[in-house]
Amino acid sequence: MLLRGAGRLLGVPPRRARLVERRGTQAGVPPGTLREQPGAQPAVIEAFRYSAEGFEERASVSADEAAALVGAPGVTWINVDGHRDAAAIRRLGEAFGLHPLVQEDLTSTHQRPKLEPYGERQLFVVVKMANPGSGPAEDAYAGGQCDHDIEQVAFVLGPDYLLSFQEDAVGDVFDPVRDRIRAEAGRLRSFGPDYLLYALLDVIVDHYFITLERIGDATERMEVEVFENPTPKLLGTVQALRREVVVLRRVIWPLREVLAALLRDESPLISDRTRLYLRDVYDHQIQAVDTVETIRDVLDGLVDHYLSAVSYRTNEVMRVLTVVGTIFLPLTLITSCYGMNFDHMPELHTRYGYFVVVGVMVAVTVGILGYFRRRRWI
Amino acid sequence: MLLRGAGRLLGVPPRRARLVERRGTQAGVPPGTLREQPGAQPAVIEAFRYSAEGFEERASVSADEAAALVGAPGVTWINVDGHRDAAAIRRLGEAFGLHPLVQEDLTSTHQRPKLEPYGERQLFVVVKMANPGSGPAEDAYAGGQCDHDIEQVAFVLGPDYLLSFQEDAVGDVFDPVRDRIRAEAGRLRSFGPDYLLYALLDVIVDHYFITLERIGDATERMEVEVFENPTPKLLGTVQALRREVVVLRRVIWPLREVLAALLRDESPLISDRTRLYLRDVYDHQIQAVDTVETIRDVLDGLVDHYLSAVSYRTNEVMRVLTVVGTIFLPLTLITSCYGMNFDHMPELHTRYGYFVVVGVMVAVTVGILGYFRRRRWI
Amino acid sequence: MLLRGAGRLLGVPPRRARLVERRGTQAGVPPGTLREQPGAQPAVIEAFRYSAEGFEERASVSADEAAALVGAPGVTWINVDGHRDAAAIRRLGEAFGLHPLVQEDLTSTHQRPKLEPYGERQLFVVVKMANPGSGPAEDAYAGGQCDHDIEQVAFVLGPDYLLSFQEDAVGDVFDPVRDRIRAEAGRLRSFGPDYLLYALLDVIVDHYFITLERIGDATERMEVEVFENPTPKLLGTVQALRREVVVLRRVIWPLREVLAALLRDESPLISDRTRLYLRDVYDHQIQAVDTVETIRDVLDGLVDHYLSAVSYRTNEVMRVLTVVGTIFLPLTLITSCYGMNFDHMPELHTRYGYFVVVGVMVAVTVGILGYFRRRRWI
Amino acid sequence: MLLRGAGRLLGVPPRRARLVERRGTQAGVPPGTLREQPGAQPAVIEAFRYSAEGFEERASVSADEAAALVGAPGVTWINVDGHRDAAAIRRLGEAFGLHPLVQEDLTSTHQRPKLEPYGERQLFVVVKMANPGSGPAEDAYAGGQCDHDIEQVAFVLGPDYLLSFQEDAVGDVFDPVRDRIRAEAGRLRSFGPDYLLYALLDVIVDHYFITLERIGDATERMEVEVFENPTPKLLGTVQALRREVVVLRRVIWPLREVLAALLRDESPLISDRTRLYLRDVYDHQIQAVDTVETIRDVLDGLVDHYLSAVSYRTNEVMRVLTVVGTIFLPLTLITSCYGMNFDHMPELHTRYGYFVVVGVMVAVTVGILGYFRRRRWI
Amino acid sequence: MLLRGAGRLLGVPPRRARLVERRGTQAGVPPGTLREQPGAQPAVIEAFRYSAEGFEERASVSADEAAALVGAPGVTWINVDGHRDAAAIRRLGEAFGLHPLVQEDLTSTHQRPKLEPYGERQLFVVVKMANPGSGPAEDAYAGGQCDHDIEQVAFVLGPDYLLSFQEDAVGDVFDPVRDRIRAEAGRLRSFGPDYLLYALLDVIVDHYFITLERIGDATERMEVEVFENPTPKLLGTVQALRREVVVLRRVIWPLREVLAALLRDESPLISDRTRLYLRDVYDHQIQAVDTVETIRDVLDGLVDHYLSAVSYRTNEVMRVLTVVGTIFLPLTLITSCYGMNFDHMPELHTRYGYFVVVGVMVAVTVGILGYFRRRRWI
Repeated sequence: MLLRGAGRLLGVPPRRARLVERRGTQAGVPPGTLREQPGAQPAVIEAFRYSAEGFEERASVSADEAAALVGAPGVTWINVDGHRDAAAIRRLGEAFGLHPLVQEDLTSTHQRPKLEPYGERQLFVVVKMANPGSGPAEDAYAGGQCDHDIEQVAFVLGPDYLLSFQEDAVGDVFDPVRDRIRAEAGRLRSFGPDYLLYALLDVIVDHYFITLERIGDATERMEVEVFENPTPKLLGTVQALRREVVVLRRVIWPLREVLAALLRDESPLISDRTRLYLRDVYDHQIQAVDTVETIRDVLDGLVDHYLSAVSYRTNEVMRVLTVVGTIFLPLTLITSCYGMNFDHMPELHTRYGYFVVVGVMVAVTVGILGYFRRRRWI
Repeated sequence: MLLRGAGRLLGVPPRRARLVERRGTQAGVPPGTLREQPGAQPAVIEAFRYSAEGFEERASVSADEAAALVGAPGVTWINVDGHRDAAAIRRLGEAFGLHPLVQEDLTSTHQRPKLEPYGERQLFVVVKMANPGSGPAEDAYAGGQCDHDIEQVAFVLGPDYLLSFQEDAVGDVFDPVRDRIRAEAGRLRSFGPDYLLYALLDVIVDHYFITLERIGDATERMEVEVFENPTPKLLGTVQALRREVVVLRRVIWPLREVLAALLRDESPLISDRTRLYLRDVYDHQIQAVDTVETIRDVLDGLVDHYLSAVSYRTNEVMRVLTVVGTIFLPLTLITSCYGMNFDHMPELHTRYGYFVVVGVMVAVTVGILGYFRRRRWI
Repeated sequence: MLLRGAGRLLGVPPRRARLVERRGTQAGVPPGTLREQPGAQPAVIEAFRYSAEGFEERASVSADEAAALVGAPGVTWINVDGHRDAAAIRRLGEAFGLHPLVQEDLTSTHQRPKLEPYGERQLFVVVKMANPGSGPAEDAYAGGQCDHDIEQVAFVLGPDYLLSFQEDAVGDVFDPVRDRIRAEAGRLRSFGPDYLLYALLDVIVDHYFITLERIGDATERMEVEVFENPTPKLLGTVQALRREVVVLRRVIWPLREVLAALLRDESPLISDRTRLYLRDVYDHQIQAVDTVETIRDVLDGLVDHYLSAVSYRTNEVMRVLTVVGTIFLPLTLITSCYGMNFDHMPELHTRYGYFVVVGVMVAVTVGILGYFRRRRWI
Repeated sequence: MLLRGAGRLLGVPPRRARLVERRGTQAGVPPGTLREQPGAQPAVIEAFRYSAEGFEERASVSADEAAALVGAPGVTWINVDGHRDAAAIRRLGEAFGLHPLVQEDLTSTHQRPKLEPYGERQLFVVVKMANPGSGPAEDAYAGGQCDHDIEQVAFVLGPDYLLSFQEDAVGDVFDPVRDRIRAEAGRLRSFGPDYLLYALLDVIVDHYFITLERIGDATERMEVEVFENPTPKLLGTVQALRREVVVLRRVIWPLREVLAALLRDESPLISDRTRLYLRDVYDHQIQAVDTVETIRDVLDGLVDHYLSAVSYRTNEVMRVLTVVGTIFLPLTLITSCYGMNFDHMPELHTRYGYFVVVGVMVAVTVGILGYFRRRRWI
Repeated sequence: MLLRGAGRLLGVPPRRARLVERRGTQAGVPPGTLREQPGAQPAVIEAFRYSAEGFEERASVSADEAAALVGAPGVTWINVDGHRDAAAIRRLGEAFGLHPLVQEDLTSTHQRPKLEPYGERQLFVVVKMANPGSGPAEDAYAGGQCDHDIEQVAFVLGPDYLLSFQEDAVGDVFDPVRDRIRAEAGRLRSFGPDYLLYALLDVIVDHYFITLERIGDATERMEVEVFENPTPKLLGTVQALRREVVVLRRVIWPLREVLAALLRDESPLISDRTRLYLRDVYDHQIQAVDTVETIRDVLDGLVDHYLSAVSYRTNEVMRVLTVVGTIFLPLTLITSCYGMNFDHMPELHTRYGYFVVVGVMVAVTVGILGYFRRRRWI
């Protein structure tokens, strides 16, 4: 069917990250107010305690049990899934002496990545994690769809503990680190909680790369297709990719600042040994920033390319019409002319009039074709 | 009706923020000159005095009564609605020792957000507040309309007082803070006036987010619609949104600098305790800046998208015309040819001439269609 | 008349600021060379001397008389109109000990705004003033016209004097300051020459705002008109406004640096009291910079809007032609077909052939209209 | 053939650098983990030892033999080809005391250019090298092809040794330096390993220029061709060049930072003598950065130019069609009119009707041509 | 002739600066290698010696004679024309103790503007000079031609000497300075070589302005013409100007850094007296930078303007075709209809059929014209 579906260029665009996250804030609420959310599921809390000698793992503890770990020997890692359980967060907050503002921030998932020292003994870190989709990369962005999520992870680093707070869904991303605590005889268990923080940040930055790889693959496919067939669907995909990159950029840039601040920070909570490792994560993060900018640059080029390609095609289509019109309109005038019914049209009655006219028409056609050929239109 | 209303693409664009605020200044007026505005309504002044023990609230006081509160025990908050009442401002200015330049700035609503210390004992802060509209977000920007206002709020922070000066209309935005003074047994009443300043700035930044949420919603709707039906009305809405963002950006960026300066400032007027809270507002403000930039980026992408989509549609329209013209112009030439009235046109008198011609026409048509099919134009 | 005047889209564009100011320099002339311009009119010099107690004003003095004021008690303000009178400038230069480079700069109006300290006892300040036009703002930029001038004002600030040098035409801009010297019992007369410098800079920055208001008004009118009727004339106006903004930006940005340097400067020539006032001018200047950027941003948006609107209109025009062509070309083929003169065309001789053909034509028309309706082209 | 090949604008685009390098990382792997790659070819290691007096060269040594050179007198240069041989890297790492993170980075080719000091005694440098293609420059980018590779080179600089690690393919780039060690009586052999590092970086920066020259040549050819014949193929080449520049920029910019850091660095590993030479490389690198930006700027201009040129051509094509249509449609109406078969058409039977009609047609044609001439369309 | 020359939009573009200068480097050549160029013409060396008391000028000396001037009393200025004479440069280099890197740089004309101190006693300065064309400015850029050259000038400043090295062609640019040495009783002869360096840099910056004036003039002419007649030739000129500006920018920006470094530099080679003059050159240079950016901004606006103007014209052309087509296609259908040869077409035989049909055609025409009039298409 000719140009089917032109009324609807691309249909409904798919799921996307929000431009402005819905906060549900009421302006003027006092800071440190934990939003009690009735009916919220209780947080899932798991606790690790480890040292070079060994480790203890408790998969599901109550907030009270976790709070009782304050001051225990070795490194304590408490991981909280579920930011809606204000009671649990308050309980942990009291036990570990979290500032009311930290407690408030922990119940909200709309923080910008940031590093905030609270005195000498606590660092509060908020980062965003990109959770790449699980389907084959080939389909992930086809049609402008985006299947990754951006979620918040917060950390509180103390002298001998690390608290981590995730949104509900991202629980298993940290599994490789858990496995390393369980298995490793080496570095992770013999270092302090600052190294654990590094290991978790490293996982998060690695996930940016996996997400960027998927976006990069889709972009490269667009680069091939815009050469072959610039359709509105393709433009939609390019724009959707561009938007994802714009949104991703918003979470990747501030993470860079967070890591730079961690490196610069004089806090005794970060040991010099660990700082070397953080420098490595920082380098990866800079590379992620570079990659985001490069992909965006290429996408901007694709939008220009698309417009130019479409303009060229319009030019081409018009050239065909103009060539056809310029040939046939004069010829039709000639034939139409000798279709007039005047009584006195001497040519009509000559013996070879018809053939002369046909000859003239052929000559006109050849002349016009020659003209277009000289102008390289055909 | 075909393309009704094309003469007027979108009608009169709706209310918008001014690009340059009308100052009505006469150049060369000496600084510190309060613009007396005859017939201006007297300012509405309300005074709070509070401490951890209790509070006193006086809803409507005269400038003289407010001035008499200088040096009273506890924290004094004097809120002035109405910047046109030069007499009241001068009276308060004398009582609280405001610099002539501060007094002049207070009578003008065209200040850029700024932080100006006056000696060790006064901080002068000017910010802009975005007052989001109250209708349903769905209609707020439909048709490029903008229903939020941008208004000025100025503060003078002293050792034991805070003066706030609003334009006439924004009175009830601070109500949640008033309620917290009345109700709270906690932080607000036991901290100094610097914390009160924080609380009010927090309300103002929260209002930016509410405004940005509305703009973000409208932008996301545009993203859907530009896929489905790129009309001039839609372009108008996108451009209007872009303009709002440009204007909003102009007030959000300098507020960031103001907050950064408050954080950095060594002034004894801001206690370390309060500085932690200001850091939180600062983070929110940075997030607002990010959001403004992201929305703008997406809107710029939409403008490109619109142009590309319209170009594609033109291409499509032209393709239809070219296909139609390329088929029918040659056919019409053939029929017109045999409509000529020459005496000697042998074909006309053959038995099957007509049918042969019809056959030729069908063949030409098939050929042309095949050609277009091969080029994928149909 | 159809599309009258299309050959000349807008006619000759109106008066505009030069992109590169004509210097008439010969490269390699030694610095400090005053360009003697034969036949140049003598400078008009006026001198003020004032202190808290009183003032003396001499409207038109010779360079020698002005030079004799060196070391007089109170504050001396010497205002020189006319930069071409090299002799007068040299005379004053000797009297006040101006560096040869300063003297050279004073005879040229092509300086960039700058602040140059010469030792501890002289500050050399060059700024540009925008002299807004005097007609009604409604006409100022209609048709891309620009009626403001950009002129140079230079100051030399000494311990007890201020020299100001204007181009010829801007004499009365400083009148309000003159009036304040004459009238005021207050600040201006009791402060030093640094405050006088402030007062004059304040007047200059105020004039930027008046100019920006006019440009802003014209821009807002364009925003309305681009919705209603995007003509080449409008595009010309938008481009002319954009150009004015680009040129204005070039003089506003460096003034900002000049003011920042004045604020930062440790020079004993600027008292702390005056610094508070300079901070105020600086804030205004920043606001002018913001406004210039915002206007420019909006104008860039308008150019995109214009292009998109014209593209849409082309699309619309083409749609009409395509609909008309798609309906009438096939119909004409049918009628033309039955105009052929073959001897054997059985349909021609049937009783209802004509009516059947008309019926077929109506059906074809309805079918095509239905097709376009479904595609929403009509 | 008319517009042959329009269905496929440019065919499949050629080989290009990846936007995001495939890491094959599994997130969460502990740092310092060397990726053992079964079946990887063993690294090719060559060792140089030299001093002012002489040199010793061993073309192919085992990792153990290389490790045995630690602490040998003179300068030791060990060059490792093949980053996949984790065992060799680990062996060298132990011998030279490389940090686990360095060892890990050496097995990955996805590092961003960086400079990392490890204590006082080791500098770890990663750079990217552009390996320009070997064919004639004329063909290198024709059709948007890109024939250069970007590969990683890493260095570890110690007090008396330099380790260099290349990807497999770039072995012979360093040959000129090898020759200088073998031949030169001069600087290279009498300086330390820091000078050797300089010499190798100098080779790498030189290769950027060779690559940039090729891109610059191709760009200049595009500048000529876009004037003569703006085809989609040309647009494809421009876009491909732009993309190469975007990718190249991503490796050139950080190298600049690396060199700046080397210059600034207080490390005792870099002598002041060598610093003068590094400053020279740094200058070249800045020039490479400038060149990249300039080329990109010119390419962006070409994209705009292309779009404008195509738009102009469309305008031109349309003008031809409009002129033809405006002349022939009215004429055809006239002739068609007198082809009607009404019984009563008085004009048909006049003696000179036919000639009058032909005269009218000529007059109409002349009038229309004059109209177009006046509008300068022809 | 209709659209003559459309096949070649502008012909071959004229001479232009290279994007990447051809170095002819072989990567890996040891630094400090002077490129011996067999057959290169010997350098033309001239020597000045001057002090407040007098001067000595030797127009053409050999390298040996120039070298013999080391340590002569007064200020020695040795000017070398011709960078290809490696022998002369080596001879001078030995005499004045130039670092091997300086000697190498002197034989290459592809340096970026830079300032390099070599110890306390030598400053090495490389700048680029724009040599404006000599023809009338009106023709300089017509047709996108560019008639200025960019050439390199290098300086070595010592305690009592200045060496200057030019490319071959620029010899007479320094003539005004030579004349000042010969003639002046004043500053130049009584200051040191630092002032001579200033005087030469001043000449070079003045030449930028002359070049920028020519480009600015051509740009302003384009601004007028794009309103009147947007042709591809004009677009070519605009693009060529833009390119010149891009290239010029690349040499003007780093000169600014060089001058800033000279100002900041603590080197005893630059006296405080001279620093005041350098500040003046620096100000001019900043102004040149501003001007380059402004011109570029205006040129970018012109490209947009061109595209918009062409789009508008296409719209206009289409409107004419659409109006013509919409009027004549229906009319032709009507006439064609009554040209059918059906036996039974009752209307044909009525008395006034013909006149009725003509009346209907007039009515249709009026209706269509009215429709277009209402839509303001005509």
